[in-house]
Amino acid sequence: MANPAGQDALTITVLHGEDTPPGLSERVGDAHLRFADDTSLADALPGSDVLLTWDFTSDAVRGAWAGGADTVRWVHTASAGVDRVAFPELLASDTTLTNSRGVFDVPMAEYVLTTILAFAKDLPRSVRLQGERTWRHRETEPVAGRCAVVVGSGPIGHAITSVLRAVGLRVELVGRTARDGVHAFDALDGLLPEADFLVLAAPLTDQTRGLLHRGSIETMRDTARVVNVGRGPLIVTDDLVDALSSGRIAGAALDVFETEPLPADSALWTMDNVIVSPHMSGDIVGWRDTLVDLFAENLALFRDGRELHNVVDKARGYVSTTSGGTS
Amino acid sequence: MANPAGQDALTITVLHGEDTPPGLSERVGDAHLRFADDTSLADALPGSDVLLTWDFTSDAVRGAWAGGADTVRWVHTASAGVDRVAFPELLASDTTLTNSRGVFDVPMAEYVLTTILAFAKDLPRSVRLQGERTWRHRETEPVAGRCAVVVGSGPIGHAITSVLRAVGLRVELVGRTARDGVHAFDALDGLLPEADFLVLAAPLTDQTRGLLHRGSIETMRDTARVVNVGRGPLIVTDDLVDALSSGRIAGAALDVFETEPLPADSALWTMDNVIVSPHMSGDIVGWRDTLVDLFAENLALFRDGRELHNVVDKARGYVSTTSGGTS
Repeated sequence: MANPAGQDALTITVLHGEDTPPGLSERVGDAHLRFADDTSLADALPGSDVLLTWDFTSDAVRGAWAGGADTVRWVHTASAGVDRVAFPELLASDTTLTNSRGVFDVPMAEYVLTTILAFAKDLPRSVRLQGERTWRHRETEPVAGRCAVVVGSGPIGHAITSVLRAVGLRVELVGRTARDGVHAFDALDGLLPEADFLVLAAPLTDQTRGLLHRGSIETMRDTARVVNVGRGPLIVTDDLVDALSSGRIAGAALDVFETEPLPADSALWTMDNVIVSPHMSGDIVGWRDTLVDLFAENLALFRDGRELHNVVDKARGYVSTTSGGTS
Repeated sequence: MANPAGQDALTITVLHGEDTPPGLSERVGDAHLRFADDTSLADALPGSDVLLTWDFTSDAVRGAWAGGADTVRWVHTASAGVDRVAFPELLASDTTLTNSRGVFDVPMAEYVLTTILAFAKDLPRSVRLQGERTWRHRETEPVAGRCAVVVGSGPIGHAITSVLRAVGLRVELVGRTARDGVHAFDALDGLLPEADFLVLAAPLTDQTRGLLHRGSIETMRDTARVVNVGRGPLIVTDDLVDALSSGRIAGAALDVFETEPLPADSALWTMDNVIVSPHMSGDIVGWRDTLVDLFAENLALFRDGRELHNVVDKARGYVSTTSGGTS
């Protein structure tokens, strides 16, 4: 058992996948580090004070939690979304949950702009035509003056809004509740028919799960494109595939999927109007170091018994904009 | 012989390629239209008052000019660059030369940003990996804070500068001579080592021809990328191919080439660090209509004996920024 009094060394369990946090051992002082993967987490977790879910795609935490987590007072996830750790048993506990809000904002905003411009300028087709040594002139679209509806009004959604407005798009930002410059979630239905680009950057919650489905797609322009950098289950994938196949909407850039990695037999891989990328929109060179920095800062606060950065409002499923945060 | 007195109907020769100006016949009043292609231009030009070079890639004008152009008082080109019509005999004549400055500015700026973001976010590789159904996470680069050197300080270069600055790049703009916010051309050598992105948007003149060659490339960062939306001969292609093959620079997005269409045996087609596109950077949907609008406006001014828009400074090879213009 551990601090904040400082008498005993902390035990930190690190749930990792193929890679581990760079330089972490030099950043944790006298804490004991236990490295675990999906299969060994259940053995490692009991007796730990802190859980760092470095592999934020893992579903192993809930199972391990049931086997004994009463000593765990803080869980930190190396992602902005907390859907994999926001299970009822943890939400009902006194354990503090923090995320990596702020690390991914501008990179993700640049990524979203990249996909919007790629659609407008037909860049994926240029790449494919180049592979065939084919010179084929096409007309392109302007982006200035077009309308983007951005769902998700946290730091990522705000960063996306800023960069899209900077290049002349009109942006309608949708969040959970209405506030200055943000539409309430229930305004989304009325905004979808306006969207040339629908950008999903929302946390995965009961409210947002499956928000894009056959019915909502039906209200959209047939020239509209969807960009998803939030979480795969924001979209009912089968409905999107149908809409893209039939031309009901014009395209989709998907960085996140209901199942990751995207299965090899997914129809999305071969659709010319789809841009598939492997959950990398926020991952700029050095991102792992930045994530370790953020965890180390929070660890220092934790040792001192002070309030942590990026504490997740467990009732809402994301960091409240009124709480402290680094973003 | 013709106006401005208005007595006689004008004769306008239209040099066209595969397409002709949409709706032109309804926009020229009582003028006679002669449509000619590369091979028939020499027969059509004598006796014409006006030459509209709708096919701005044609080299046929100079040959036809020698066969009789003394009645031609105005040449208008459906492009921003005037290199194909800026031959000595026309430059020495009293014929007024106008271009289509202003039509392509913002579309080209958006196109340049698209290629810069595509390099930073590794989008062409995502497209190719998608074609192989391969999920491969990569780290990407930020563009905010990176340095772009933009060569060409006309409306296109200024539009590029604005949009790149809007997303957070530092931009150094290079023109023919130094003025407020613009470096003189001879400052380029000192700026090249700073460039993460070198953007060529200059007119093709004696000063700019071959500006990127083995020697200038040697001064650049090995992480730098080149974007050319100006004219192919701004670059010594063989030197660029060598530099891209050896990793001396990191990439190039080329929309213009020394020979267009790019020959099927060009090494550029198969280079993974090259984005080839078919001279389309400025060509948004409706661009042909906009070009006809611009010609029709100028035709009305011509009939009235008034100063035309976008008069090219024949000594410099481009529209002087102090002259009237629509951009």
